[in-house]
Amino acid sequence: MADKAQLQEAIKTQGEVVRKLKSEKASKEQIDEEVAKLLQLKAQLGGDEGKHVFVLKTAKGTRDYNPKQMAIREKVFSIIISCFKRHGAETIDTPVFELKETLTGKYGEDSKLIYDLKDQGGELLSLRYDLTVPFARYLALNKITNIKRYHIAKVYRRDNPAMTRGRYREFYQCVNDRRILDGMFAVCGVPDEKFRTICSTVDKLDKMAWEDVKKEMVNEKGLSEDVADRIGEYVSMQGGQDLAERLLQDPKLSQNKQAFAGLTDMKLLFSYLELFQVTDKVVFDLSLARGLDYYTGVIYEAILSQTIPASVSTPAEQNGADEAGVSVGSVAGGGRYDGLVGMFDPKGRKVPCVGVSIGIERIFSIMEQKAETSSEKVRTTETQVLVASAQKNLLEERLKLTSELWNAGIKAEVLYKKNPKLLSQLQHCEETGIPLVAILGEQELKDGVVKLRNVASREEVDVPRADLVDEIKKRTL
Amino acid sequence: MADKAQLQEAIKTQGEVVRKLKSEKASKEQIDEEVAKLLQLKAQLGGDEGKHVFVLKTAKGTRDYNPKQMAIREKVFSIIISCFKRHGAETIDTPVFELKETLTGKYGEDSKLIYDLKDQGGELLSLRYDLTVPFARYLALNKITNIKRYHIAKVYRRDNPAMTRGRYREFYQCVNDRRILDGMFAVCGVPDEKFRTICSTVDKLDKMAWEDVKKEMVNEKGLSEDVADRIGEYVSMQGGQDLAERLLQDPKLSQNKQAFAGLTDMKLLFSYLELFQVTDKVVFDLSLARGLDYYTGVIYEAILSQTIPASVSTPAEQNGADEAGVSVGSVAGGGRYDGLVGMFDPKGRKVPCVGVSIGIERIFSIMEQKAETSSEKVRTTETQVLVASAQKNLLEERLKLTSELWNAGIKAEVLYKKNPKLLSQLQHCEETGIPLVAILGEQELKDGVVKLRNVASREEVDVPRADLVDEIKKRTL
Repeated sequence: MADKAQLQEAIKTQGEVVRKLKSEKASKEQIDEEVAKLLQLKAQLGGDEGKHVFVLKTAKGTRDYNPKQMAIREKVFSIIISCFKRHGAETIDTPVFELKETLTGKYGEDSKLIYDLKDQGGELLSLRYDLTVPFARYLALNKITNIKRYHIAKVYRRDNPAMTRGRYREFYQCVNDRRILDGMFAVCGVPDEKFRTICSTVDKLDKMAWEDVKKEMVNEKGLSEDVADRIGEYVSMQGGQDLAERLLQDPKLSQNKQAFAGLTDMKLLFSYLELFQVTDKVVFDLSLARGLDYYTGVIYEAILSQTIPASVSTPAEQNGADEAGVSVGSVAGGGRYDGLVGMFDPKGRKVPCVGVSIGIERIFSIMEQKAETSSEKVRTTETQVLVASAQKNLLEERLKLTSELWNAGIKAEVLYKKNPKLLSQLQHCEETGIPLVAILGEQELKDGVVKLRNVASREEVDVPRADLVDEIKKRTL
Repeated sequence: MADKAQLQEAIKTQGEVVRKLKSEKASKEQIDEEVAKLLQLKAQLGGDEGKHVFVLKTAKGTRDYNPKQMAIREKVFSIIISCFKRHGAETIDTPVFELKETLTGKYGEDSKLIYDLKDQGGELLSLRYDLTVPFARYLALNKITNIKRYHIAKVYRRDNPAMTRGRYREFYQCVNDRRILDGMFAVCGVPDEKFRTICSTVDKLDKMAWEDVKKEMVNEKGLSEDVADRIGEYVSMQGGQDLAERLLQDPKLSQNKQAFAGLTDMKLLFSYLELFQVTDKVVFDLSLARGLDYYTGVIYEAILSQTIPASVSTPAEQNGADEAGVSVGSVAGGGRYDGLVGMFDPKGRKVPCVGVSIGIERIFSIMEQKAETSSEKVRTTETQVLVASAQKNLLEERLKLTSELWNAGIKAEVLYKKNPKLLSQLQHCEETGIPLVAILGEQELKDGVVKLRNVASREEVDVPRADLVDEIKKRTL
């Protein structure tokens, strides 16, 4: 009984937390989370009070997509897919989970974020963490050495990335090369065994100021200040082909085999970018250091930079932008991973690979925000015509006509009510964007016609039933 | 050391198993499975012998899709989606995993097939087992009472369904109603608490003969023979509207409230099917009993029946067909589930639902087999033109023209080699089905033209560079 009293007390306290958040107009996520806690406590109480109490939510870090969001998502996908197809890419698919050992040793410090499946007897499995490692496994398994593929699928990571929304104005790409980074670390005096961990620290430069990154290098990773300062000089460099050429003249860096190979390739890359006329969009940036272990050569990221017009930004927003230096969002990234397939091949045969991963969630979130502020309505269906009636007892006639239209390939809907009002049928069209209504009545049936109404202009015209399909097609090209 | 010797012995034995299967030309799946066991044994041995030894495979019960398979799968999807859109459906998406408790108590005996995620701290999660329960959760969470949605996504079940391939000739749908089944059980004398488990047994009638089903009812589920025989009479009945009317005259059955409601709705359903002119495709079948707990009214399945033409069937195949009675494959199924959303609503508010799930894997497997036996080539890209050259040192010119075509929206490819042979460029087109080649040479560059070649007819014509895009568009409509 003491337990029950404690529980009731906890429920009361938690209830106050929820009420406070609501009164403070806290974010929906925050409120939902506290409500979930409250419901869990109530469920523990059991008995009648716990009856029908569910924690009604999606798993943390996941979300549903409603039809409007799906319409936007599909639009984004269709643009991306059409780009891949324009470049002659094929598509593949792999399972959502892999053998656990397939993912082992591929992600460095990020491995802790992998979702494992419960051991229910049989194989040990993990949800895929990216599409790159399953792709490498696919290549090795099928002995493929040559393919240009795209793969659209979800990946699973046990973290909750903060999704910043905002106005993004500029779009550009950063490029670097793992070998330039490694060469740079070597000539700066970083011990070999610290290359990877220092690389992870450099990777934070997009979110942290150099001073803090340096602190981490010196205090946590044990570099001397001298070494850190030398790194600091390099990672502040940005440029294009000219920078690659200048660094090839750098006596220390160009003596390093790795750096020399990386810089030579960078020069070649920029000569191709010139042919494609995109040098204005691409920056050679020595601070770019993607964290994953499997990259071996060129690495890159696509960045959206946020610019808040002074006229609408609040002091807090300006502060935020200041704090973060340039407030950026990475929407894609990738690089060369020539060693990964060999890790799966029994004989260690290497297959050079290079790829890019697009962070569709962030792009989607930007598109969604755009759609919200735009006056244009997002349609979630493609229905061309609603079959309607103003009179009673015509359900069967409505169904029959709808069936005729479906058989002719017309996208048609009909309300399921027995005797819906004409007004509610028209309202359904307004709400969902259906452009045409095919209206049936006793008179129309007798005359062998259908009254075709344009929802927007409210014009109506009698169309012979035999011509209806053609007329609808003509009007909804 | 004794362990090591044992392991080596086991490896030897397993090696022989693999060799035997290979010599017998066993199925790829079977061989792969035994090879995986062999590799696992070798990995256990460790040391140098175990080095680079991976179990290179996908998780059991899963598969990859290569580009050709994806092209077929996307064709199947586009047909299905266009049907949903024709009927005015919207689409949604939900996460691949749900809170474990969301799935609890929804699947009856099948619950043991749910994949759970490992407890890594935080919430207890399970992979979705179907799309119906997440949909009901979505409706309750978003307080939606009215939606026509389709949802295309994978679901996860811990079993290995045998995938039978074959020639499917006939397509029809079976219909029944949970209430008719329950009413039937009641009037036959099945105790209330055994309805669900007897329902599961009846569900096996598509794979087992009545005699075996009866045995299970009597020996395992404890029904008396009398009761089982009475069920046997009902479940042998098949028909249409006439059968529904006849059973409404059955004095016992029509006295049962549940059965009466079910039969009345069945009559109404057939009157609508008549309007849609599909009564020849639909059979009212009293043996249909879908296993899932959540169905409350009409239930149905879409069946492909396999007919093997006598001329090509082997005795073994004929035997197989005999053994299974009618050899059928269910490719879709569903029903009414009026109680499921209420299970998620804090106040238990009901939302009536009805739906169908299409088993895309089986349909895909049939389509794939069709494509294999057909002479028509499946294209995996949509590339319209390959930019090629017969001469050396034109990589930059090829890249430049390719870039021009991409910018004009043409789907174009270019080989990445510096100086590929014209023959290998033409072969690439033959292999991948690219219909056109745009050939550049010193002379063409001087004349400001491109030689456009039709791969199939081998005809070549000089096209002014400024007209190239239009000419390609015209030829690849």
